[in-house]
Amino acid sequence: MNTQSHHLWLFLLLVLTNLFITACSKVDPLPSWNEGDSKQNIIAFVEAVTDKSSPDFVPAEERIATFDNDGTLWSERPIYFQLFFAIDRVKQLAPQHPKWKTTQPFKAVLDNDMDALAASGEKDLIQLVMATHAGTTTEAFSQIVKDWLATAKHSRFDRPYNELVFQPMLELLTYLRANEFKNFIISGGGIEFMRPWVEGVYGIPPEQVVGSSIKTKFEMRDGRPILVRLPEINFINDKEGKPVGINQYIGRRPIAAFGNSDGDLQMLQWTAAGEGKRLMLFVHHTDDKREYAYDRKSHIGKLDKGLDEAEKNGWTVVDMKADWKVIYPSN
Amino acid sequence: MNTQSHHLWLFLLLVLTNLFITACSKVDPLPSWNEGDSKQNIIAFVEAVTDKSSPDFVPAEERIATFDNDGTLWSERPIYFQLFFAIDRVKQLAPQHPKWKTTQPFKAVLDNDMDALAASGEKDLIQLVMATHAGTTTEAFSQIVKDWLATAKHSRFDRPYNELVFQPMLELLTYLRANEFKNFIISGGGIEFMRPWVEGVYGIPPEQVVGSSIKTKFEMRDGRPILVRLPEINFINDKEGKPVGINQYIGRRPIAAFGNSDGDLQMLQWTAAGEGKRLMLFVHHTDDKREYAYDRKSHIGKLDKGLDEAEKNGWTVVDMKADWKVIYPSN
Repeated sequence: MNTQSHHLWLFLLLVLTNLFITACSKVDPLPSWNEGDSKQNIIAFVEAVTDKSSPDFVPAEERIATFDNDGTLWSERPIYFQLFFAIDRVKQLAPQHPKWKTTQPFKAVLDNDMDALAASGEKDLIQLVMATHAGTTTEAFSQIVKDWLATAKHSRFDRPYNELVFQPMLELLTYLRANEFKNFIISGGGIEFMRPWVEGVYGIPPEQVVGSSIKTKFEMRDGRPILVRLPEINFINDKEGKPVGINQYIGRRPIAAFGNSDGDLQMLQWTAAGEGKRLMLFVHHTDDKREYAYDRKSHIGKLDKGLDEAEKNGWTVVDMKADWKVIYPSN
Repeated sequence: MNTQSHHLWLFLLLVLTNLFITACSKVDPLPSWNEGDSKQNIIAFVEAVTDKSSPDFVPAEERIATFDNDGTLWSERPIYFQLFFAIDRVKQLAPQHPKWKTTQPFKAVLDNDMDALAASGEKDLIQLVMATHAGTTTEAFSQIVKDWLATAKHSRFDRPYNELVFQPMLELLTYLRANEFKNFIISGGGIEFMRPWVEGVYGIPPEQVVGSSIKTKFEMRDGRPILVRLPEINFINDKEGKPVGINQYIGRRPIAAFGNSDGDLQMLQWTAAGEGKRLMLFVHHTDDKREYAYDRKSHIGKLDKGLDEAEKNGWTVVDMKADWKVIYPSN
């Protein structure tokens, strides 16, 4: 190769590289989102906080984004998916607990009385979760969750529960991660119920999962250390508990927060109260054809005060029906 | 440039690149560590778990390393540094609490009776910490800690407390990080006492700090959300609490754990009980000239059972006097 042809090759390489970079920068990071305010708000926010020349620039280590799980990253209807897990566990464990036949909320479960169950108060539901989530080691429990997910299916969609995650939100998680955000789950759901599967599904490692928890106890059993799960509440990571959990686990205020119900309101308020540019977003369930439609009067995932606050403060409200091209990942 | 000279330049570039890579690979990652078993064990472990062709290879996301703080990353004598902070706070707040003059452990503090204070039980000390660490917002407390560190000095070494960190351990943190480990602090000390300064000193971000904590409460004050620190224990991250804290915050078992006292024993046991190659290490305080010498009979940082277990299980025990060229970073 002579010098001239060498220069030509170099030139061609530069042109190609340039074309490639331009092409890449034009790839839509949120292909399942229709054009509109929601998508525009998200992209404008990410571009502002990652642009070093912008007054809104935020260093990478402070790019904390917090996501509710139930109703925000996956569906929560007809009841929270963790409750289906608890129900299946009650049925499985019932032979060892004869009293459950006559005691609520266990009776409702064993009678398949979903109305009675749905009408249960938060404390009843927590009791149900505690009774079915305790008594094993942490390792055994993780396996129980994995086994359940591998076999249980959502009755309406006939798919495993961890496939009923929102494709547009998966893209959002990826987009934020690509822009050096650290994504955390801040859920009212059980922390040990989420950890076995969220890394594979959302790309969120266990150390970035915050949830409700029961107490555990360290023990030496046959010379081997174990952690036993106790039927005692440790922490409820919901409503006022979410900023508490964020502070406890992360120790930094998020700059972006994503929720779908009044249970996320305090997390969004806490996020909004920090200095600098912020993104607060509610997913509004408006699509009864492809998913579910509910808000102010819903028993599960009630979004009432949150809608008022969002309007008052100019937070982003995603209209699932209008804003999302698809709901779930393709099979 | 003709083709021949072009080839010559390419060749020279390759040679230089190669030299540079070779030079880099020979840089000692732990220059403040003397050659010996401790250093060798650390390097052999890191090389084994990061070598893709090794049977001991561990994927990067599972390279969790946990470090105790007091006595492991910084000194803890004559008393835990956080107690000096509490003492200074008691003196500062005393005018607002006349009863402290006659109530232990506050009386001991106000009388400068260090012997009485050192003899206090754990509960007394916790009470002291709670009384001086609560009553503010989380933001205000963080500032109080920073202000204290900027002015307070260790009486023996006449240096700010956050300069009394162990240079060899700083190198170890950097070495692990360079090998894609995620370093966590797992300390009995207060989580909110550590977070304001550990990122700058250890390169460990707040979300990788686990410690003891008091409860906090979410409140709206003048339309702004705050977290108020309550004088109520939330969690004691010591002894059996360390594996509990590790599970609660990280949700993965560490593959390497570093401590210096019996308060870290359960963390090391928990780490050791996982499958695959592990590194368990105790820092043994053997240098009364350059730092302090204490172990089995010490009131603070007692290392008794831990030494027996280390010998029995072949864990690494660092002899500070023999293994470390320097103790603290140079001024």
